[in-house]
Amino acid sequence: MSAPDAVTAGFHDRYATRAAGIVGSVIDASTSIIQSRRNDVVRLAMGSPAADFVPVALFEELLVAVAREGAGAFDYGPTEGDEALRAELLRDLAARGEEVSPSSLLITTGGMQGIDLVCKLFVGPGDLVVVESPTYTNATATISSYEGRMIEVPCDADGMDVDALAERVAAAGAPPKLIYTIPTFQNPSGTTLPLARRERLIDLAERWGSLILEDDPYSWLRFEGDALPSLRALAAGRVPLIAVHTFSKVLAPGLRVGWTIADPAVIARMVDARQSMDTCTNTLQQRLVARFLAARHLDDHVTGLRVEYRRRKLAMQAALREELAGHGARWTDPGGGFFLWLTLPDGMSTSALFPAALDAGVAFVPGAAFSISGAFPNALRLAFSAEDPARASEGVRRLRQAIDGMGWS
Amino acid sequence: MSAPDAVTAGFHDRYATRAAGIVGSVIDASTSIIQSRRNDVVRLAMGSPAADFVPVALFEELLVAVAREGAGAFDYGPTEGDEALRAELLRDLAARGEEVSPSSLLITTGGMQGIDLVCKLFVGPGDLVVVESPTYTNATATISSYEGRMIEVPCDADGMDVDALAERVAAAGAPPKLIYTIPTFQNPSGTTLPLARRERLIDLAERWGSLILEDDPYSWLRFEGDALPSLRALAAGRVPLIAVHTFSKVLAPGLRVGWTIADPAVIARMVDARQSMDTCTNTLQQRLVARFLAARHLDDHVTGLRVEYRRRKLAMQAALREELAGHGARWTDPGGGFFLWLTLPDGMSTSALFPAALDAGVAFVPGAAFSISGAFPNALRLAFSAEDPARASEGVRRLRQAIDGMGWS
Repeated sequence: MSAPDAVTAGFHDRYATRAAGIVGSVIDASTSIIQSRRNDVVRLAMGSPAADFVPVALFEELLVAVAREGAGAFDYGPTEGDEALRAELLRDLAARGEEVSPSSLLITTGGMQGIDLVCKLFVGPGDLVVVESPTYTNATATISSYEGRMIEVPCDADGMDVDALAERVAAAGAPPKLIYTIPTFQNPSGTTLPLARRERLIDLAERWGSLILEDDPYSWLRFEGDALPSLRALAAGRVPLIAVHTFSKVLAPGLRVGWTIADPAVIARMVDARQSMDTCTNTLQQRLVARFLAARHLDDHVTGLRVEYRRRKLAMQAALREELAGHGARWTDPGGGFFLWLTLPDGMSTSALFPAALDAGVAFVPGAAFSISGAFPNALRLAFSAEDPARASEGVRRLRQAIDGMGWS
Repeated sequence: MSAPDAVTAGFHDRYATRAAGIVGSVIDASTSIIQSRRNDVVRLAMGSPAADFVPVALFEELLVAVAREGAGAFDYGPTEGDEALRAELLRDLAARGEEVSPSSLLITTGGMQGIDLVCKLFVGPGDLVVVESPTYTNATATISSYEGRMIEVPCDADGMDVDALAERVAAAGAPPKLIYTIPTFQNPSGTTLPLARRERLIDLAERWGSLILEDDPYSWLRFEGDALPSLRALAAGRVPLIAVHTFSKVLAPGLRVGWTIADPAVIARMVDARQSMDTCTNTLQQRLVARFLAARHLDDHVTGLRVEYRRRKLAMQAALREELAGHGARWTDPGGGFFLWLTLPDGMSTSALFPAALDAGVAFVPGAAFSISGAFPNALRLAFSAEDPARASEGVRRLRQAIDGMGWS
């Protein structure tokens, strides 16, 4: 089936200009490499939930119930989302104190599609988009795929440095059209933007006339500290903001069910854009989630996850202290979510470390993956979500072995 | 939750240029309207499969088996597609005489995503794209969303008029970058491009250096006539071609599982582009389809569908002869697929007829929806797939009533 070179070449010079900005995900590529190495690799790379906490038996029961609804459970559904899921989600959000109008809600194929839709609608060639540094790889890939021009703003232990934001934008000489941020339990750093920074960020966006894209996959998974108001709550009536959420982290990512909240006029445009992208989100799993919510399983489930993820974070930090305290390494202290960010001494390369770590039997994502400028050569992301404390501790031990084997010290 | 007007307005002037080309689907909008009218509407609008032929009980059994695979069935999967589904699909294709290399195959979120990926990679602002007229609404919406400039080529009872294609391209003054075609049981017309036209189309594409996007959702559903070689088979080694397929029509559309076949270099770029769109197709339903294929259910299932859709087409044509022969109407005679195309006498407006037909209790899609220039004001698409012969005949009777009530005759 491999076509002759001439035909292959026939594609090469016909890519659209934007294709130059379409880059593969380092995380995904790493996953393939990981799987090809050895079977017992400790998986600290992907942001997957704890497998033991995916309610598989309950999902099976609910899937049977959905299938018994008949052929409609396997047919096209409304582009806005399945009616049952929309109703249950709006009810659940209201119970959490978030009143959302039906016309402000769109069900998406994972949270990722919400980011894609916002960028497709708003990011044109050369448009300035603020991103955190480090930040979520697939989001910068999306912005890049629509030819946006990114301004990277450094983060510290409290998330985006908003003073640096003002400076970087001043240096860019033009206000950003869009500010992309993960303010709560950030990916990859695990940091959370404090209230004062949230307010200042919104002030700046208001002054600049910028849109805000608030990416919030993790805020329900807070295990330490007090909840903060979302940017959406703080921006209401002042700054145009779109909030992207997902069930991937609190239920299961393979469902590919997320949701976006925005001004009804924007949601209507997103519905239009969706129809020529994937038509609608898969019906069966929307109804699975609807039944999960209707049976009031979510609160107990999330409570259990919070306890477990705190346990996992603490165990990983204990292992890091045990193994890496003498190595000059430092790491963040997330109050929720899936990730912590490990920084090794200057001069060490986590990209060089990556294959050695795989050989030693542990996977992570090198820091350079989380920045369009390849910053953070000596940092890496560790997910404490997927592996249990014993396995994760073994992973950290293997990581230390790999570091020791690099001959850096 | 409705934001003040100033904030709503804050979005309005920030849309990217491409957003002007993002248009909603008339078919989807119609569906919402249909549902809001009356419950017993005969559904001749949407291209949904026969509900009685969706193997719901078998799906339930297979879903239970997939769920019992454990948490992995609900986790992220490879962007290229679930390994089990890829293996089963490649085996099934080989059994049909189609040898496809693994690196030429991408599992997509419905066939629609394949079209979106091709357009995102290849269609830039102002790029010329050939489309049939009439053609699939969501495909022209996708091309438009990436700012492609379309050349509409008329169809007759044998699909795209390839002489007209040559003329239209000559008139455009530049070769098209991409030719989008549904050569087999076309949507909406139900027509099929004969072999001689297929060969001529490929000759023209080769001469122009054009890519071909072969959209093929229906070819397995042939119920009359002999199978023709696909454009992909005819183009091999001569013209760069991407073929888009789906399980939506032979299994169920709510699964959102399709596949794309292309040169490995193009598939690799599509994988990159996917990661920042929806990450991967939902795992559970990919594995459901894999098990359906592994159990060798597909051939019997498709054989049953062919018999049933032929029965439905013949019943609809009989009803049309009975009700509309005296009205100056004519219609196509598809050898497979879901649709036939009905043309009323000049001067009649199927857009005006649409609300009256809904009031009478039957839904169709007005012809103007299938052309970017709003051609075919007096035509409409009828899906014979979704309703059984008795209901479809009742639908045609209601359609005639609605026509009679327009006072056109």
